[in-house]
Amino acid sequence: MRVIIFLSLLILNGQAIFAQQKSDSTFIRSIYDQALTNSDCYNVLRSLCKDIGPRLSGSENAAKSVTYMEQVMKSYGFDRVYLQEVMVPHWRRIGDAKASVISDKKIQVKICALGGSVATPVKGITAEVIEVQNFEELDKLGEAKIKGKIVFFNRPMEPKHVTTFRAYGGAVNQRGNGASKAAKYGAVASVTRSMSLKNDEHPHTGAMRYEEGVNKIPAAAISTKDADLLSAAIKKGNAKMFVQFNCETLPDVLSYNVIGELKGSEFPDEIITVGGHLDSWDLGEGAHDDGAGCVQSTEVLRIFKKLNYKPKRTIRAVMFMNEENGLRGGMKYLEEAERLKEKHLAAVESDAGGFTPRGFDIDAEDASISKIKSWSNLLAPYDLNQINKGGSGADIGPLKKLGGVTLIGYRPDSQRYFDVHHAETDVFESVNKRELELGAASMAALIYLIDQYGTR
Amino acid sequence: MRVIIFLSLLILNGQAIFAQQKSDSTFIRSIYDQALTNSDCYNVLRSLCKDIGPRLSGSENAAKSVTYMEQVMKSYGFDRVYLQEVMVPHWRRIGDAKASVISDKKIQVKICALGGSVATPVKGITAEVIEVQNFEELDKLGEAKIKGKIVFFNRPMEPKHVTTFRAYGGAVNQRGNGASKAAKYGAVASVTRSMSLKNDEHPHTGAMRYEEGVNKIPAAAISTKDADLLSAAIKKGNAKMFVQFNCETLPDVLSYNVIGELKGSEFPDEIITVGGHLDSWDLGEGAHDDGAGCVQSTEVLRIFKKLNYKPKRTIRAVMFMNEENGLRGGMKYLEEAERLKEKHLAAVESDAGGFTPRGFDIDAEDASISKIKSWSNLLAPYDLNQINKGGSGADIGPLKKLGGVTLIGYRPDSQRYFDVHHAETDVFESVNKRELELGAASMAALIYLIDQYGTR
Repeated sequence: MRVIIFLSLLILNGQAIFAQQKSDSTFIRSIYDQALTNSDCYNVLRSLCKDIGPRLSGSENAAKSVTYMEQVMKSYGFDRVYLQEVMVPHWRRIGDAKASVISDKKIQVKICALGGSVATPVKGITAEVIEVQNFEELDKLGEAKIKGKIVFFNRPMEPKHVTTFRAYGGAVNQRGNGASKAAKYGAVASVTRSMSLKNDEHPHTGAMRYEEGVNKIPAAAISTKDADLLSAAIKKGNAKMFVQFNCETLPDVLSYNVIGELKGSEFPDEIITVGGHLDSWDLGEGAHDDGAGCVQSTEVLRIFKKLNYKPKRTIRAVMFMNEENGLRGGMKYLEEAERLKEKHLAAVESDAGGFTPRGFDIDAEDASISKIKSWSNLLAPYDLNQINKGGSGADIGPLKKLGGVTLIGYRPDSQRYFDVHHAETDVFESVNKRELELGAASMAALIYLIDQYGTR
Repeated sequence: MRVIIFLSLLILNGQAIFAQQKSDSTFIRSIYDQALTNSDCYNVLRSLCKDIGPRLSGSENAAKSVTYMEQVMKSYGFDRVYLQEVMVPHWRRIGDAKASVISDKKIQVKICALGGSVATPVKGITAEVIEVQNFEELDKLGEAKIKGKIVFFNRPMEPKHVTTFRAYGGAVNQRGNGASKAAKYGAVASVTRSMSLKNDEHPHTGAMRYEEGVNKIPAAAISTKDADLLSAAIKKGNAKMFVQFNCETLPDVLSYNVIGELKGSEFPDEIITVGGHLDSWDLGEGAHDDGAGCVQSTEVLRIFKKLNYKPKRTIRAVMFMNEENGLRGGMKYLEEAERLKEKHLAAVESDAGGFTPRGFDIDAEDASISKIKSWSNLLAPYDLNQINKGGSGADIGPLKKLGGVTLIGYRPDSQRYFDVHHAETDVFESVNKRELELGAASMAALIYLIDQYGTR
């Protein structure tokens, strides 16, 4: 008898779960229908890229983008749209960089200053070039071999990694720390192979940091094609290089995180954040990095609003300022969360490009990861097959300090990301409309489930 | 005691399986390493697209591509490289199509003749246009409303489908059969909205067929952008259209399937085919459709050869001729298989573009599908997450007649395929090197497992 009751309960419970899953799958289907037939994110991205353009922290364009995204969110009628003040660094590039490789002949090559670099002297620097693959090689060469020279960091991103972010992670210390490492041995400048798996003529910029107390030398990136050319010239012997560029660091500037909210109906104090960063590097249009993440995050709330969905929790779209060279926006968002004693349930960031969806990486306790994995059957029909433990996003990372926040990185396909990342090729035309829309829908689907069922 | 023995056997067996899986995973890793660091397929595709160009059946370029791919396979040192004779249709476009929409003003629009169409009269056709979404609407309008007019088929591909091939399948009957359906009611020409989810100015060609005994009227495709423009003009009332193009069907031409083989060491009579089609439409360069499939299939054998892998079964790369407008190559391949009493174990086709991998669709008995699914853990690390029952490929489809052949379609991501499919935009530049290489490695990994363990 007991067994029968137990089985009956099990069946009833099973039916209830099935019915719930059916209504969830129906709602998720309506999210995708909305995204694929009636989205606005591609148009907003076009404006962000074409009407405004690159949005480096502290620039006039960055300020314009704050006003624009605030206005877009207001036009959607979100419950609340506001700005969060944050002081950001203000580095700027002045004019184009010039460079050439001088061996048996003189060949012009394409370089760009790295973000945060000092300028070269007005007349540029001409010096012998020494190539290294890593800091160990640099240490072995020492001051005797390096003093007075330009150090060329030429370790390529490892093409064997299927996920290109792993290849990036394995090479980017050359760009970030190479200049100071070289300066310690008396180098006069550093030139780093662009962080790209593609062989082309576009240099890729990105952040570099000077170590305290170390001489600040000019730091540039060279296109992958010209890195190969330079390396070949060095192998022939006695290659020199000429580099000349201008840039400067100005005083910090007042800027803003742009925030839009849909107020929770049952648990208004529990916050789910979805975001991307509004600032970009200055060479392209910041289309994939990270205009895509901003317009997708805004689109998540627009879809909910359009579908007349009343979230249980408060859902916030946040356009973080200054991810690229300071992370001040992300840190300010944490600071304000602490000050206001906000309860953050989860945060999702899209900062890996507007490419076709693959899944999510989750930085949380195992119970939370298991819960999200239990929704796999609802997400798999939408090509979201990869739900893994992993890192989330730079801007939402600081929220970890609050404890118990489920941090999630939206993961589109990574193959083409570093082709355009931080380069002049990161333009609106490189974004596919449907891939962008599917990303917005993917985040909306996940956030809907978190809103309904929590993270435990 | 018995229990202990049983458990011990289980553990030993488990260890053996683990060791085997480890060696399989190591070999599959080496396939990807080879594809991602030392592949040749991107270069071969460049030649196919840039040195040769479009390769419509019967054309001079198609003949050149046969010679070129034969030479490439010979240069790789495959065990056997040979041509399989096949007579193919020879339709050709002569000059550019001209068209305009005439309402309150006259606006030039972009159209192209569909493959197989007859020409318009030399002076073109000017007639009123009537828009329909499907054949049911056409039937309702009947001869009274259609006679003497140009029928405009304007049902878009359905953007709600996540897999774009489903959207294509739901719209392509307008292109294939629209002209004859319209001609039965006295239409003078048919114009079909291009099979694309993208809103742009490029018309997409593709095969159309005339029904026996029905008047052959000229059939064209109009770009999606101009389809919207035409539709808007029709809504305003009394829109006419002018269309003018020239094309002709010439006598059949002798052509070839190009075949390369690695001979099996244990079961040389069991054949595993991997292929794509060498012919393409004439507007672009046939880069994704299906230069990609050809160079990937060739790359599979090149990788095995390079890794010094001696297959148990005979592995064949087949470049089929005339998939686009006749399927004669695929039918000839079956005919020869029957004549020679070949035993075909499996066939894999790549004809969905050179995009980032998603998985495989399998057309086979459930036991075979289950067996392939059991390899999921070996394939998932390479983004091959979708292994499903489904259709395979047009060229290998005829092999089904042999019975017991496991037919497999390689499935890359489908979002961007119809942006370029059959249009002038299907060029080498639209193919990403890594995505192409990952596709070749994906097929090589699967074929390695089939070669090792069969399909049952």
